[in-house]
Amino acid sequence: MTVKRSYAVLAPGLFASRAAKTAHGVIAYSADATAAVIDVDHAGRRVRDVLPYLDSDAPIVATLDDALRYRPTSLLVGVAPPGGALPPAWRATIERALAARLEVVSGLHQFLADDPAFAAAAATSGARIWDVRATPPPRLFTGEAYRANARVVLTVGSDCAVGKMTASLELTRAARERGVRARFVATGQTGIAIAGSGTAIDRVISDFASGAAEELVLANASDADVLFVEGQGGINHPAFAPVTLALLYGSTPDALVLVHLATRTHVEDFGTPLLSLAALVETYEGLCATVKPAKVAGIALNTYGLSAEDARTAVARASAETGLPCADVVRDGPHALYDATAPSFARKTEPLR
Amino acid sequence: MTVKRSYAVLAPGLFASRAAKTAHGVIAYSADATAAVIDVDHAGRRVRDVLPYLDSDAPIVATLDDALRYRPTSLLVGVAPPGGALPPAWRATIERALAARLEVVSGLHQFLADDPAFAAAAATSGARIWDVRATPPPRLFTGEAYRANARVVLTVGSDCAVGKMTASLELTRAARERGVRARFVATGQTGIAIAGSGTAIDRVISDFASGAAEELVLANASDADVLFVEGQGGINHPAFAPVTLALLYGSTPDALVLVHLATRTHVEDFGTPLLSLAALVETYEGLCATVKPAKVAGIALNTYGLSAEDARTAVARASAETGLPCADVVRDGPHALYDATAPSFARKTEPLR
Repeated sequence: MTVKRSYAVLAPGLFASRAAKTAHGVIAYSADATAAVIDVDHAGRRVRDVLPYLDSDAPIVATLDDALRYRPTSLLVGVAPPGGALPPAWRATIERALAARLEVVSGLHQFLADDPAFAAAAATSGARIWDVRATPPPRLFTGEAYRANARVVLTVGSDCAVGKMTASLELTRAARERGVRARFVATGQTGIAIAGSGTAIDRVISDFASGAAEELVLANASDADVLFVEGQGGINHPAFAPVTLALLYGSTPDALVLVHLATRTHVEDFGTPLLSLAALVETYEGLCATVKPAKVAGIALNTYGLSAEDARTAVARASAETGLPCADVVRDGPHALYDATAPSFARKTEPLR
Repeated sequence: MTVKRSYAVLAPGLFASRAAKTAHGVIAYSADATAAVIDVDHAGRRVRDVLPYLDSDAPIVATLDDALRYRPTSLLVGVAPPGGALPPAWRATIERALAARLEVVSGLHQFLADDPAFAAAAATSGARIWDVRATPPPRLFTGEAYRANARVVLTVGSDCAVGKMTASLELTRAARERGVRARFVATGQTGIAIAGSGTAIDRVISDFASGAAEELVLANASDADVLFVEGQGGINHPAFAPVTLALLYGSTPDALVLVHLATRTHVEDFGTPLLSLAALVETYEGLCATVKPAKVAGIALNTYGLSAEDARTAVARASAETGLPCADVVRDGPHALYDATAPSFARKTEPLR
């Protein structure tokens, strides 16, 4: 086992923005500690002052040198720019961290370990570079996961960045608190940084993306009753739906949990109208029905930004529209949704053969 | 422009099998010549004797040295094993070809140019290695292709290996014979070897697969009226559907042509029942309708293996089931289907915004 990490979280000028979702996810959910956040725009404050929902006292500082006073073990590149390339302005900080023998953890598409300067700095100091998006060797989908013992619950979404990872993490917690051997299976860079393992399906060569999802299920199924697999993207997202579909088929789910951000009306990156919840249920179930039937067991409605009353109304409306259990697993806690959906997780479904 | 190639086609022990589909496709459709086929199992015969439908007099020989007597310019690795790795038994032939200064053209996932022995042999002799699956730099889907001038017609299938590439090639030919500036856009290793350019979408990192499809459309749209984009996989194929969906969204089609092999009833690799033609139309159109509406304009029914009478019956049944024009573009020639579907290719469709 790895020693528990203590992170300096690098998010220069971006910590309060949605681009820093890897930083936010790790602070909120990782078993690792956050020593400090590096963002000069908020230096001198604490995480809680900037983002109250993260519920963390970690200090925000201006530079890596300031952060080193809090004795981090690791530097987390906490921002995921679209396309995943490294902003050149961050290079000096990363080299400095490696020289100071900090482990550097990055979810960028551009692998830091492949960069000659970083590789040399790491070799000199003995620091480790963990590119969380680095993928296992190519492997085709085989159907072997159809025979795995654990049940698989996949979160599927109305769009990117609506709360699929959070829903999977919260349902895992609820299941464990109910005495079930449940495991969160990470499929994206933030989830992997939180869980300490996983595969970034979006980084896998398309031909092997379903196979990589299946491999994750096989790797986690032997000592768990239920796997909560983190979903990605959305089925009508023009750029990322292929990743969504790789998980829908490759992770061989027995049940789905639909995740939607109540305030979202259009695909964020493109302006395409979102499907209605009922249409999303029909689309996801319809695709599963052609390979291995799986039903949507419930809806995790992310009501972030709504008043308590508006949130209650939105939850009631989503439930009425679909006839399914619905809750906000952060605002309401995950137990209500878990208890309502768990009967659907209690059985394996069979592939069409 | 490249000098026209003359191929020695490497398909040892496999030329008559479906695994040699790259060999078959290049012989049937490439503007490049086939000097000889290397397959000891059929040495002494001609291509036409083994596979009459390929309509080629090229000799089949036992070894590369035999093939060199026919003065090839290039060696084509004409077989695509599942997973795309190089069978070790072929190494010696490839090294010998490079030493003889033949260009080596390969559609394998495993890039020959990355192999130290092959790279060294190529450097010594000055031979070129063309890994047709090598992909351009990562690029996210942007929506820019929505504004391209050319109309896009994408073939979509009931499964892998049912005739999508052939349908796209035949419709391109028909359009040109009708005076339309049409272009075949290759998206898989065989199509690329035939066309001389293209991108193997199945080799692109999932996050960028839609973007790569879009880039192909943009690269070909400026001097063409209609692009016939080669489809891949099938929407309920558990391993390859993500590639299918990347093309469905990323190539921004204005119309679809559904391709089905009349004798196929189940997904070949997994045994899952195929969707009915009507259900396939509904599934593909339903997904497009959430991003950029496109309708299935017609059905290219591959009646290979059926008697003439059974083929006519199958075509009539497919047309009756769907209410769409249907033909076998090989058996009947492509003009009937082209003429029936061309009105659907005459207009751009708009994305949902």
